[in-house]
Amino acid sequence: MNDGWRVYRYGAQGLSGPFPDQLANEEPLEVRQRWQGTESPLGVLMRTPGADWELLRGWLHAEGLTVPGEVPALHVHPENHNLWWLDAPVPDDYAARLTSGACGICGSGSLERLMLRAEALPPGPPLDPAWLASLPESLRSGQAGFSASGGLHGAALFRTSGEPLCLYEDIGRHNAADKVVGWALNHPHLDRAQTVLVISSRLGYEIAQKAVLAGIGAVVGVGAATTLAAQTAQVFGLVLCGFAREGRLTVYAGAERLTRETE
Amino acid sequence: MNDGWRVYRYGAQGLSGPFPDQLANEEPLEVRQRWQGTESPLGVLMRTPGADWELLRGWLHAEGLTVPGEVPALHVHPENHNLWWLDAPVPDDYAARLTSGACGICGSGSLERLMLRAEALPPGPPLDPAWLASLPESLRSGQAGFSASGGLHGAALFRTSGEPLCLYEDIGRHNAADKVVGWALNHPHLDRAQTVLVISSRLGYEIAQKAVLAGIGAVVGVGAATTLAAQTAQVFGLVLCGFAREGRLTVYAGAERLTRETE
Repeated sequence: MNDGWRVYRYGAQGLSGPFPDQLANEEPLEVRQRWQGTESPLGVLMRTPGADWELLRGWLHAEGLTVPGEVPALHVHPENHNLWWLDAPVPDDYAARLTSGACGICGSGSLERLMLRAEALPPGPPLDPAWLASLPESLRSGQAGFSASGGLHGAALFRTSGEPLCLYEDIGRHNAADKVVGWALNHPHLDRAQTVLVISSRLGYEIAQKAVLAGIGAVVGVGAATTLAAQTAQVFGLVLCGFAREGRLTVYAGAERLTRETE
Repeated sequence: MNDGWRVYRYGAQGLSGPFPDQLANEEPLEVRQRWQGTESPLGVLMRTPGADWELLRGWLHAEGLTVPGEVPALHVHPENHNLWWLDAPVPDDYAARLTSGACGICGSGSLERLMLRAEALPPGPPLDPAWLASLPESLRSGQAGFSASGGLHGAALFRTSGEPLCLYEDIGRHNAADKVVGWALNHPHLDRAQTVLVISSRLGYEIAQKAVLAGIGAVVGVGAATTLAAQTAQVFGLVLCGFAREGRLTVYAGAERLTRETE
């Protein structure tokens, strides 16, 4: 947990804050193979620190990188809890599972690496928090697949003027976001800084990263944001709102862009 | 959608079925680079088919594999909608993102590949559906992090006799499952066929795969199962239950292991 973050809350009483909030901690863990004098990457996992040994034990098992019945030789870097080594051979044909970004992002490097690839977002128009809070309901009413199966995430893009632009569903929230970004990139005349990405999920680093890389100005989610998502949003000027439901909203970054009813 | 699946439902009226149900469709998409006469894997995405071009457009952008402003040369296999090619150069240092299993699993190969690595689960003891339906509540009451942040998935392992064994939290549901499996592997005298994995999420292929590979006999989730998860459970003899909440349960596979109140 990280209770050092400050959020704004929107509800029946309008926009208020800042309030201290506890965010789910998200950090990248990198595991490297160290064998016969060489080191090579095995994978990067975006995870909540804690029980890292168990995490790697289970992950290596699922990846087929451990010998059944043997305890893997796992060692953590003495000063960096996000860097681990597996001191054992792995199959020659194993291709590193870099499930999130490239290797070498362990530690505090994620944001620094993203800063090499993306620029701060341009200032966008003011946003009405009541409208933002209503977007997940609009998203859900357009989700044919969710109604049928209950098992699909949805993502949609809206103009800040209110117009719905596109909506996609997928079993994976990152896929749903990628589909929206793909649609937007295919409409090069669209001013993406004047759009809002709405997603039926929680808000992790990769969702914030995809929005920043696409130049989308705001993200609204149904669930909570992680530490790394909130930090990313703040650094790049992304409006990041979570827990959008029933006329309420938690604002993790960019509250200065939200209109206040008293104005 | 796939409405050819049959489920059993447990509720106030006991266990009943089978009923036809619509499951969220999950299939692996593989994208390969085809450039200067050679082919190499770029990534595998577990996704819901549909809008695959948009998905790849957005995903390649997030991975930094496209040139801003240019439309990528994407082509789909004429007979296999799960195999795509990017006919363009990519950075030399790009390591394939095989986010799920190894390359080559496109088409219907996921189950076949898993069958090379895992065996059918041994028959386990009968399970009381009322107890299974209560497990997510037990999980949640043990989730300190979720209470604080609302942003953490939880996974726990129970003996079929009822005893709680371990509980972990993580921003990622796959990570939470890996932590539980890691704990279980570290207790080699535990008969994993007589355990139940409970998870606060939906049930995709990778959750079912992790349970099968670990020899865990049953999985209970709060959300829906996908097509591929249900198929995996059926093939390997895994009891797979979703929508476990408020005394109810949907049984996707293994209903024959559940006790009936009329017995």
